[in-house]
Amino acid sequence: MEPNSSDHREAVEIAMETEVHRVAPPPHRSTLEKLRTRLKETFFPDDPLRQFKGQSWKVKLILGAQYIFPILEWGPKYSLTLLKSDIVSGLTIASLAIPQGISYAKLANLPPIVGLYSSFVPPLIYAVLGSSRDLAVGPVSIASLIMGSMLRQVVSPAKDPILFLQLAFSSTFFAGLFQASLGFLRLGFIIDFLSKATLIGFMAGAAIIVSLQQLKSLLGITHFTKKMGIVPVLTSVFHNTHEWSWETILMGFCFLVFLLLARHISMKKPKLFWVSAGAPLLSVILSTLLVFAFKAQNHGISVIGKLQEGLNPPSWNMLHFHGSYLGLVMKTGLITGIISLTEGIAVGRTFAALKNYQVDGNKEMIAIGLMNIVGSSTSCYVTTGAFSRSAVNHNAGCKTAVSNIIMAVTVMVTLLFLMPLFQYTPNVVLGAIIVTVPAACQIWKIDKFDFLVMLCAFLGVLFISVQEGLAIAVGISVFKVLLQITRPKTVILGNIPGTDIYRNLHHYKEAVSVPGFLILSIEAPINFANTTYLKERITRWIEEYETEDANAKKKSEVKFVILDLSAVSAIDTNGVSFFKDLKMALEKKNLELVLVNPVGEVIEKLQRADDAKELARPDCLFLTVGEAVTSLVSTVKSHSSSYV
Amino acid sequence: MEPNSSDHREAVEIAMETEVHRVAPPPHRSTLEKLRTRLKETFFPDDPLRQFKGQSWKVKLILGAQYIFPILEWGPKYSLTLLKSDIVSGLTIASLAIPQGISYAKLANLPPIVGLYSSFVPPLIYAVLGSSRDLAVGPVSIASLIMGSMLRQVVSPAKDPILFLQLAFSSTFFAGLFQASLGFLRLGFIIDFLSKATLIGFMAGAAIIVSLQQLKSLLGITHFTKKMGIVPVLTSVFHNTHEWSWETILMGFCFLVFLLLARHISMKKPKLFWVSAGAPLLSVILSTLLVFAFKAQNHGISVIGKLQEGLNPPSWNMLHFHGSYLGLVMKTGLITGIISLTEGIAVGRTFAALKNYQVDGNKEMIAIGLMNIVGSSTSCYVTTGAFSRSAVNHNAGCKTAVSNIIMAVTVMVTLLFLMPLFQYTPNVVLGAIIVTVPAACQIWKIDKFDFLVMLCAFLGVLFISVQEGLAIAVGISVFKVLLQITRPKTVILGNIPGTDIYRNLHHYKEAVSVPGFLILSIEAPINFANTTYLKERITRWIEEYETEDANAKKKSEVKFVILDLSAVSAIDTNGVSFFKDLKMALEKKNLELVLVNPVGEVIEKLQRADDAKELARPDCLFLTVGEAVTSLVSTVKSHSSSYV
Repeated sequence: MEPNSSDHREAVEIAMETEVHRVAPPPHRSTLEKLRTRLKETFFPDDPLRQFKGQSWKVKLILGAQYIFPILEWGPKYSLTLLKSDIVSGLTIASLAIPQGISYAKLANLPPIVGLYSSFVPPLIYAVLGSSRDLAVGPVSIASLIMGSMLRQVVSPAKDPILFLQLAFSSTFFAGLFQASLGFLRLGFIIDFLSKATLIGFMAGAAIIVSLQQLKSLLGITHFTKKMGIVPVLTSVFHNTHEWSWETILMGFCFLVFLLLARHISMKKPKLFWVSAGAPLLSVILSTLLVFAFKAQNHGISVIGKLQEGLNPPSWNMLHFHGSYLGLVMKTGLITGIISLTEGIAVGRTFAALKNYQVDGNKEMIAIGLMNIVGSSTSCYVTTGAFSRSAVNHNAGCKTAVSNIIMAVTVMVTLLFLMPLFQYTPNVVLGAIIVTVPAACQIWKIDKFDFLVMLCAFLGVLFISVQEGLAIAVGISVFKVLLQITRPKTVILGNIPGTDIYRNLHHYKEAVSVPGFLILSIEAPINFANTTYLKERITRWIEEYETEDANAKKKSEVKFVILDLSAVSAIDTNGVSFFKDLKMALEKKNLELVLVNPVGEVIEKLQRADDAKELARPDCLFLTVGEAVTSLVSTVKSHSSSYV
Repeated sequence: MEPNSSDHREAVEIAMETEVHRVAPPPHRSTLEKLRTRLKETFFPDDPLRQFKGQSWKVKLILGAQYIFPILEWGPKYSLTLLKSDIVSGLTIASLAIPQGISYAKLANLPPIVGLYSSFVPPLIYAVLGSSRDLAVGPVSIASLIMGSMLRQVVSPAKDPILFLQLAFSSTFFAGLFQASLGFLRLGFIIDFLSKATLIGFMAGAAIIVSLQQLKSLLGITHFTKKMGIVPVLTSVFHNTHEWSWETILMGFCFLVFLLLARHISMKKPKLFWVSAGAPLLSVILSTLLVFAFKAQNHGISVIGKLQEGLNPPSWNMLHFHGSYLGLVMKTGLITGIISLTEGIAVGRTFAALKNYQVDGNKEMIAIGLMNIVGSSTSCYVTTGAFSRSAVNHNAGCKTAVSNIIMAVTVMVTLLFLMPLFQYTPNVVLGAIIVTVPAACQIWKIDKFDFLVMLCAFLGVLFISVQEGLAIAVGISVFKVLLQITRPKTVILGNIPGTDIYRNLHHYKEAVSVPGFLILSIEAPINFANTTYLKERITRWIEEYETEDANAKKKSEVKFVILDLSAVSAIDTNGVSFFKDLKMALEKKNLELVLVNPVGEVIEKLQRADDAKELARPDCLFLTVGEAVTSLVSTVKSHSSSYV
């Protein structure tokens, strides 16, 4: 059955001798069937029920349980060798998670212990439900920042800490509910609208905002602005120079240099991942010892203070489902939910691609969502898969989600027995841990427009606000896509001499135009947004073609306009009128319109419209441009010879 | 030079013997040059400066003047024969414009005489600036309705008529400013987002809303709701049955039947256009005589009352450019501006297509915009090209915009001398004139989704509000387009035996798959919104293909995945990563990724990215699927033979 080149040549020869190939109308399908296919492609592109087909009831049950709880899939095969790797990586990420948890909770204006609570329950839930092997779960900086700033605009965390905590847990609940619903309703593609360029710009901007917020603890300022923009923060910093504390600045500077150096080393040599992974915990221990030894808390260095021992207290009685704050917590939940979901899914996919396994986006959403719903009633705030910790987890050689369990157990031990040790940990070190330097990028080189999107996200986050910067960048990305639809490419095709291949005249130098034919290819669905443009553009193509011909004194007029519709994947009602109008306009100029290779949907819709029916008669359609030209040339010849 | 079929066959034969054709990188162009081309395609698709090329300064000046004032183009050629036709049509539309003008002004809660003012100045301006020969300019129902209802929500036209009038003129000014700016900035494509389906649904809904509003005058109710939804209007009607006046109902019913009958006759026989054109004026005259003869104004029939004689007074001192109402008038101007612009442009294009001349959308916007700006300072409110009147104009045989001038002169005579005659015209007849029956449509048959859009616009207008109904319909249309981008079609191709043509396996029954090859065609730009989906979908294609093969016990594994990129008109940064990731994923499965016929932009972007460069090496790309298959088959053969 394998064709080779000589078979092929023969085949082509035969084809040229026989009749040209007609465009077949697509096989008939009912409206319901079409709807079913489209819904499936939209909501179930991964066909999750595929594996269930043709299995016995028992197998189906097991497969179903494994689908909902991935731990049942890999759990039975779990071995001691795997456990060894997971213990190493679990302890490594725990050493990172404890100081980060405390720091991020402070970033969200929450009590530091909430950060530890959030590193205990959610990882356990994720280990059971999640399908990524590398994701290290816990609080993340950007979601913490956004939640803190959104809630702080309405309620003061200093004046009304209980209410603030209640709102934080309620927001977490709604974030989880929203994330899980996206997964259940299979609407995961919504997060696809956050493009890479948007995310890079957003992350870079947010990193700077987060770092600037740390100037409060790094400089030891007590009266700090509540706003997040770069302008109010810097104003606040330089208006309160009298509050700067040199002891804090010195300590902060030393640990900041140490941490950035450690991160730099790990970035250069991924094998030394433990340097950056261990540095935060080491900083916390060292600084705590320093404060304890020199009683620095009496010399202007602020410390965390007493933390309560014990595991997560229940918090479901703290959730607000009504009252005046409902709108606020739903909005906060929505935004932090979508941001943290995007980070979690992106991180999961990145490492899954590296290890060549699949992560089901919609399933991950349900896992992350449930994890936050459970978290909200066990004193946790928004958590997701964090990029920095997952990278450490991956480099430390984690094999399964058991590394999350190990981390959770370590945090549990800390919560139960080690809390008094944090009493003297200075806030300045927590600030230093959060500071990051945004990554550079090569987007400019590839796509100028994407770079613009990135810049908008970056500057929007810095100068307007975190949410609006993101909204602007998403808006611009969507607008670009709409603009592509509104101004689809029309390409003039020419024959590549010695073949029946037709390609873009302005790209392929060797392509030549066929006298008497204007061959255009339309490269987008034809719909309401572009029919007007296409009509104008095609009219201009014809005029230009005729002028060029007149200049060349060839005196060959255009007789046929061939539209190659291979790339027109869909049309709507306006598109059908477009063909009708175009045919009418061309007929007035004595030109014939010929359609080549329309897809099934286009043929069907044309045939269903009363006025455009004749355009889609099978004997008026051609399968390739080459066949159309050959056939039309011979028609013209036979006509002219019969008249002579 | 004309190829014939035997030449062609020979050519193909030669092609098969020589080397396969390589994909050429596109000719080099600088970033600036590319930006220039893209901006030109986006904002100047009609290339308006085309005609100026290579002309002398004097000719350029004349052409420029003609471009700005189309009257200079057709004016010099104007003849007596044309004038005769224009006088007939001008008088016909005047007989329609006078009663409609009064009615529409009442619909907008404005004094009736403003409707006549608005039928005098704007047509004169349009005659000089407009490029349509059939457009009959004046107030229209939907824009009147929207303006009236938006302003009435803030200011009561009964309690504060002067302020209401000032706001109406100010809104008209902003509508004009907005329309003209859209034209100047060449952003005309914004109105393209109002699809045919949206407009039909919207118009039908608005027609019902307008008609329902007329129940006030048709039933003689004095305490009527200020809202526009179908529910409050009907509630208001049946809660005020005691206010119903039988004289008014009788009179209204008779004239309504007469007018609908007249319209029905003209619709059936377009030659009898004058029946529906004359009916409104005849109704006004008859009813006025009836009222006058029976002194019916004393028996519960409300009449227009005294109207001031004289031409439009200046109103520029009534425009509000600051103060608390600025936001309201800008918003009202924006919405009425875009609605009336859409109607005007659509009407202009419809009749231009019938008579086969061009209407420049951006130029029309400037004309309509300037007409409203001038109108706002001469006591006119929002005007545009009305569909009903333009159809009458066209049927009455108008030749140029002179028919608008004739209409304006007739209105002028009316304003100067005939105003006392309207004193006894009953409001009920004005109500009857406005009532229309929405048109049916065949959209359901062609596109189910478009029908949904139409229904949303229709029901939204009826049950929510005119503006929101429109917004919902536009939102759904845009969402549909985005969904198409998010879930692009991927089609599996097979060889049509005896040719080197590859087409959709599921559409063409005769197409067969080539063993060892999975040939996919992607039919949309690849960007952030669809890379995740495409990755998942392609993975599933491969799995399905392998399972099918396994079932057929052919034991032929896939070796090559060929992506036909002919229809991928653009990619962005995410698209570049997509190819990189896909290549990596396929390599892990021992599959080779081969790209066929990428367009210039795609080649360039792939080459510019460091990681994806090798995918776009000219010797890895093929021009057609056929050549790729032939060439790869022979490579495999030579490899296997060298190993054996």
